[in-house]
Amino acid sequence: MNLDDLLTQSGEWLRGVGPDSDIVISSRVRLARNLARLPFLTRASDEQRVEIHSEVRQALNRIRLVPNGGHCYVNLAESSELTSRLLLERHLISRELAGGTGGRGVLFNRTEVISLMVNEEDHLRMQAMRAGFQLDEAWDQIASLDDRLDRLLTFAFSEQFGYLTACPTNVGTGMRASVMLHLPALVFTKQIDKVFASVTKINLAVRGFYGEGTQASGDFYQISNQVTLGLAEEEILAILKRVVPKIVTYEREVRDHLLDKDRLRLEDKIWRAYGLLHSARTISSEETMDLLSAVRLGVNVGLLSDLDISRVNELFILTQPAHLQRMEKRPLDAPERDAARAEFIRRQLGFLDPPRR
Amino acid sequence: MNLDDLLTQSGEWLRGVGPDSDIVISSRVRLARNLARLPFLTRASDEQRVEIHSEVRQALNRIRLVPNGGHCYVNLAESSELTSRLLLERHLISRELAGGTGGRGVLFNRTEVISLMVNEEDHLRMQAMRAGFQLDEAWDQIASLDDRLDRLLTFAFSEQFGYLTACPTNVGTGMRASVMLHLPALVFTKQIDKVFASVTKINLAVRGFYGEGTQASGDFYQISNQVTLGLAEEEILAILKRVVPKIVTYEREVRDHLLDKDRLRLEDKIWRAYGLLHSARTISSEETMDLLSAVRLGVNVGLLSDLDISRVNELFILTQPAHLQRMEKRPLDAPERDAARAEFIRRQLGFLDPPRR
Repeated sequence: MNLDDLLTQSGEWLRGVGPDSDIVISSRVRLARNLARLPFLTRASDEQRVEIHSEVRQALNRIRLVPNGGHCYVNLAESSELTSRLLLERHLISRELAGGTGGRGVLFNRTEVISLMVNEEDHLRMQAMRAGFQLDEAWDQIASLDDRLDRLLTFAFSEQFGYLTACPTNVGTGMRASVMLHLPALVFTKQIDKVFASVTKINLAVRGFYGEGTQASGDFYQISNQVTLGLAEEEILAILKRVVPKIVTYEREVRDHLLDKDRLRLEDKIWRAYGLLHSARTISSEETMDLLSAVRLGVNVGLLSDLDISRVNELFILTQPAHLQRMEKRPLDAPERDAARAEFIRRQLGFLDPPRR
Repeated sequence: MNLDDLLTQSGEWLRGVGPDSDIVISSRVRLARNLARLPFLTRASDEQRVEIHSEVRQALNRIRLVPNGGHCYVNLAESSELTSRLLLERHLISRELAGGTGGRGVLFNRTEVISLMVNEEDHLRMQAMRAGFQLDEAWDQIASLDDRLDRLLTFAFSEQFGYLTACPTNVGTGMRASVMLHLPALVFTKQIDKVFASVTKINLAVRGFYGEGTQASGDFYQISNQVTLGLAEEEILAILKRVVPKIVTYEREVRDHLLDKDRLRLEDKIWRAYGLLHSARTISSEETMDLLSAVRLGVNVGLLSDLDISRVNELFILTQPAHLQRMEKRPLDAPERDAARAEFIRRQLGFLDPPRR
């Protein structure tokens, strides 16, 4: 596969076919690993950085990423900023890797379930991201990959502390588990802060659509473990597996309440969003996220029956700046993007005939 | 005709078929008259008020209002507040008459070109309102009516001052001439204040959609003469006939400029308005005016080709609170009106099948 395949097909989590996928967009487990014989990246020389990159890449070449799946390796040191941005928008790399320098890259497979970043904060960061609420499945996949890589590489590991990582918060399992939730009803009824307060109290972190330091957008929230040291992988997963269903239930209850007691206001919000996506001739990325969020809610509560949920999910990503520019095959300034975005949305939602070219 | 006819048919100016009606909604000439033998209303006793009412009504009964036209007399002392409000929304009576007390009423004809208010500020206020830019035609019609009434009634008149009126600003001809303009492009490009400044400088008044003291709404502005004393009727008309075409030209130039140089922004504004009217499930009167204004502009500049301009014009009036309640045949509180309004708009614009009842 190559990068342009990202424009014509979407990975599992974007198709949104997993359990509870009306609310749980994706479940992600990420492991941080470092080669024992080379220093952490904060201390590594340029030569050592290249050495890490090449050693990890060789190992990645030797394992089969997933059975029967095509895959793609992108060397970010040799890629354009637009490519980094594309992968970032796609949740295949982090902002840290996108904004980094020197030898670094990412390997991911066709379903976009597995991605492995080389020379991000740690030498190797591998993640499995599954559609819907599938933390165990994500964990099984990434654990099996970790085992296979462990046979090829010697990771920095301490009997006392566990896996050693560049940042102390990751020491131990090196694991971060997270779920991306779509909580439009809790936001609409201003009850989302209550959720955050209780989630934060039990040491879970709440982040926006694009992870650490990003704003919540489109009513998407990532919930993840803060602490890893002293906890086994299963314990971390257990916390999320206990908390997430409660939030899912809360969101569903509020949706039902709105449908039952405040239906007109809900319908108005959803249909107005639909109407604006239908008719806008220029639209920002931020407004797009907000309107798509309402439309996604509309599809999930059965108020909008003509729209395909996968199509709506994809739009959250495909309308981002780098995706738009890659599709248009040329750089676009902000006003050009806003116009291209509006047209693209109308075409994707079936409001516009496909272009003749 | 009766009041409910106002819901199923619309007068000439609402159909919007007059000259320059893309910008000039209506041209109106109003005359103030008082019976010589009875005091002004500020000084009249309740009995005298009744006497005025009955004398003027008798005269009105004896003239043919317009050839072949049905007409309607509404005695506001015996009418509900909703009826007053309906007539006010329809521009057939003033806020002063609607809010008044005691014997008072209005006579108007089927085309809604002529209306005569009894016991408003003066004993008699008669107006002719024509679609588009037709000040001379309105003046001819009201002057002819004035002549006919003059044969039946003795109006207060001074050789020195002319017609005597309750408020000194009307003394002389007792005439106010006004045009209602739709200036969305000048508002959109923030050039409307320049227009107001120059209009005010030559002693013309600028008012909102519902006259004195009302806010501009839906980008509608009424321009009228401030002074009447010392000017002949033709001189008053001449000022407006000189100024209005300049404003019309200015608005047209700005529309052309937008179409040429800022088309995307214009299209976006117009289509978003269309999309919201298409999809909203609850909508305030104010938002409706704003959105209809953009849609009206869209039709007039050729960007929206499927909509009938008369239908759009009518909506400005039919979506007002009293019209909605009269149509629904029951009182509606504000949230109920907003919901009924949204549904009505969608039905009128052909987005919804007619109700089955």
